[in-house]
Amino acid sequence: MGKVGFNMTMSLDGFVAGMNDSHNNPLGDNGSHLFTWYSIGDTEYKMPGGDWKFNISAASAAQLDKAMQSAGVLITGRKTFDIAGAWGGQHPADVPIVVLTHNPPQEWVNKKESPFIFVTDGIESAIEKARVIAGDKDVELSTASTLQQALKAGLVDELHIDIAPVVLGKGVRLFEHLASLPLVLEQLASVQGQGVTHIHYRIVK
Amino acid sequence: MGKVGFNMTMSLDGFVAGMNDSHNNPLGDNGSHLFTWYSIGDTEYKMPGGDWKFNISAASAAQLDKAMQSAGVLITGRKTFDIAGAWGGQHPADVPIVVLTHNPPQEWVNKKESPFIFVTDGIESAIEKARVIAGDKDVELSTASTLQQALKAGLVDELHIDIAPVVLGKGVRLFEHLASLPLVLEQLASVQGQGVTHIHYRIVK
Repeated sequence: MGKVGFNMTMSLDGFVAGMNDSHNNPLGDNGSHLFTWYSIGDTEYKMPGGDWKFNISAASAAQLDKAMQSAGVLITGRKTFDIAGAWGGQHPADVPIVVLTHNPPQEWVNKKESPFIFVTDGIESAIEKARVIAGDKDVELSTASTLQQALKAGLVDELHIDIAPVVLGKGVRLFEHLASLPLVLEQLASVQGQGVTHIHYRIVK
Repeated sequence: MGKVGFNMTMSLDGFVAGMNDSHNNPLGDNGSHLFTWYSIGDTEYKMPGGDWKFNISAASAAQLDKAMQSAGVLITGRKTFDIAGAWGGQHPADVPIVVLTHNPPQEWVNKKESPFIFVTDGIESAIEKARVIAGDKDVELSTASTLQQALKAGLVDELHIDIAPVVLGKGVRLFEHLASLPLVLEQLASVQGQGVTHIHYRIVK
């Protein structure tokens, strides 16, 4: 069985998006600073799905590739699904996407060949379904809210945090609404990229 | 002329001490997790002043030694000075200490051979005095509050943040009360230690 993990870029002060994130402003105010590292490296990395290409350092490309290879399924929330416009029907990671929502969008539920699986009965159920889909590969939580819910339920094994060189001061905080504090981690590795530091943690249970 | 820098250990979610920090609880509630990395490495590092010894990784020891070699003076705040009990009269860094305070403690002002210089007229003045003392060496801000004041005044050149593998959730936030946001940084280097990641930033002005 694979692990339940999480991978996201975060500002040095803990934000994963700026204020006012929406479909027209997907990273929120000043949030583009989080992703400067995606365009300043000398190595082109093509995402598995769609037409996404990044220019990152070789060290970052190796990290990203490892993440793409190990991910069997992603879990996302409805807000991100909407902000991203359903990724035009194909997520950059090109794996099945479990969407946690109270209200599945009928235009996608009825579609044939859709990569989206809508789950309405909570994070435990979403992770259970995702594990079946992922098989030996990992289940990746892909939003702050699904991470927070899964942490509360004690179901997260590992975190991969990409620390971006910016202090946003406001926006969407990654670590909020946690039931049990402190959350003690073990640092497994940290890797210097160009304009970013990748840190891999295990959650100490 | 040296640089104006800052070096501190911070939790992954941005805290430099837990709640209720005081003389009897200097790191605050759960704050000891921030400093686990000081005792889990295989390299003994003796601080220049007093009897402080740490067991850290060789990579962390090299970072700490570089910081100690380059620091010509520290600037601290009155709260930290009191919480630390004036470090028993000798700071671990063994350099002159500029203390920003509204009300200098007379028992120290009147002492001969004290390493403490009390400044009552604000952060700009404290940094100006500290620069004279430091000469070619660096001025190190050593508390969250003095960093925040110096950032507001646009007087900080570099940050060294040691990221500890813990989410505290509450306590003393490092990046608060900033006038100008976002604070854009350039990552100069990041180094993997045992149980900690050291990241070195330049402040983009």
